[in-house]
Amino acid sequence: MTQPVAILAGGGALPLALADALRARGQMVRVLALRGFADRATRRAADARCGLLDPRAVLDTLRGWNPATVTLAGYVNRPGPLALLGAGSAFRNRDIIARLASSGDDGLLRGVVGLLEEQGFAVSGIHDLAPQLLAPAGQIGRVPVSQPDAIDMGLRLLSSLSPFDVGQAAVISGARICAIEGPEGTDAMIARVGKLWGGGRLPRSGHAPVLVKTAKTGQDLRIDMPVIGPRTIRRAAAAGFSGIALGAGHTLILDQAETIAEADRRGMFVVGVNLTPDGLPDVAMAPVGL
Amino acid sequence: MTQPVAILAGGGALPLALADALRARGQMVRVLALRGFADRATRRAADARCGLLDPRAVLDTLRGWNPATVTLAGYVNRPGPLALLGAGSAFRNRDIIARLASSGDDGLLRGVVGLLEEQGFAVSGIHDLAPQLLAPAGQIGRVPVSQPDAIDMGLRLLSSLSPFDVGQAAVISGARICAIEGPEGTDAMIARVGKLWGGGRLPRSGHAPVLVKTAKTGQDLRIDMPVIGPRTIRRAAAAGFSGIALGAGHTLILDQAETIAEADRRGMFVVGVNLTPDGLPDVAMAPVGL
Repeated sequence: MTQPVAILAGGGALPLALADALRARGQMVRVLALRGFADRATRRAADARCGLLDPRAVLDTLRGWNPATVTLAGYVNRPGPLALLGAGSAFRNRDIIARLASSGDDGLLRGVVGLLEEQGFAVSGIHDLAPQLLAPAGQIGRVPVSQPDAIDMGLRLLSSLSPFDVGQAAVISGARICAIEGPEGTDAMIARVGKLWGGGRLPRSGHAPVLVKTAKTGQDLRIDMPVIGPRTIRRAAAAGFSGIALGAGHTLILDQAETIAEADRRGMFVVGVNLTPDGLPDVAMAPVGL
Repeated sequence: MTQPVAILAGGGALPLALADALRARGQMVRVLALRGFADRATRRAADARCGLLDPRAVLDTLRGWNPATVTLAGYVNRPGPLALLGAGSAFRNRDIIARLASSGDDGLLRGVVGLLEEQGFAVSGIHDLAPQLLAPAGQIGRVPVSQPDAIDMGLRLLSSLSPFDVGQAAVISGARICAIEGPEGTDAMIARVGKLWGGGRLPRSGHAPVLVKTAKTGQDLRIDMPVIGPRTIRRAAAAGFSGIALGAGHTLILDQAETIAEADRRGMFVVGVNLTPDGLPDVAMAPVGL
């Protein structure tokens, strides 16, 4: 493509990692950092910076770039009421604001995708643009996978939670659910389980906890694809976890080489599990006995 | 009954509250405090004290009392491996130990109920013995119920989680799930939501959170009936909650007068919602427009 891929960049390291991955394949890239969400490094490296709630500036910038496609990368928490009010009075497009303010993070991001498409932009997912960033199927790294039943239970739990727009991750120990992720995020959930484990609320005798993480069933993978990275491994290892199971093709692994090296070093397994369209473990295609 | 009701007493204020409620109706009561679980006040007031993992002592004590029925009251976290090992070597009944060590709190308590029934004891639930302790249907207290949609969503969520032996409580704000309870318990979950709310991860503009709590669908109500009390109200109010919705007949209200007075004082609604056998809100019998 001679037209660039435009990255609408939220928080975390993903936007720049995606830009690097695309540029490594010779793809031209433009990064639009979303103020209030994008990290400092992203804002510095970006070609432009706009407020998410200043849709006019976002759309004008994108039009100037004439991108082949637009992609959303990085996390975007919901804006507070003051930001919404400010954007409302500045832009006076109550429809857009009302859509952005709709329920849940997904509602917000679906609103952004819908707005971009209405304005004639193609919107792509990271899974289309850089599939090499996705979790593959099968054992990832050197540590053999254990606790297939816990992994199976975790994936079934997440599948059954999907209608509620919550729960892209859970922690299972043996046959017991230790935590279900809410808006606090994966890191905070891991810390919570570490405390339960340390504080005697969970049995030390049992299996060490397993983190299970995948996109919601039926999720539009262009928005809010779940991510793990080296920090996830370090935090899970510190909390006594035995491993991490990911929906193959439905989860991003940030800085894959370093993530796998960390997991190997700390004796944690990482596995990608093929999923059916219902988000259940796909037994027919199951790797490593899952 | 001239035979006593025997209360196997775990942690919290419920065992003595139940004993009081039964004695107020002229019922003879014997309390067996479970060491390591029962509160100090319960241990002091108890007629006997045994380890939960010393089944011989528990059964001998109960046989001596010749109770009309036995009931479990108060929370029982899972014993650590050392307690299990100790009980195993003392009692040498590996079957019982294995059953007690089975997955989840429910597994443990089902094991206790099964063991008691095998030994010829009738086991009753608090809902049978003291239904006046249960949440009634309809508005409880003076604050009008708000956010029926959030309550409905919370009850549907808990119903769909029931197969996984987790989630007797969740917190909803508007159409967004803020937290699902794990082994950390309701108080810790309320504190977590308070932090999210205060830390800007949840929008202040939206509806204040609602706590939704009920027994798991298909739950044996003789074990692990969910409980709220004055402390729940105080903590939820401190975390900015607008109210609490309970499964009518499926949740205990400890110290009901004080709980309602606290809720009224702090402007929080409390409501009991009739549920279908699937744990869904029973529209036909719905109070207050739910």
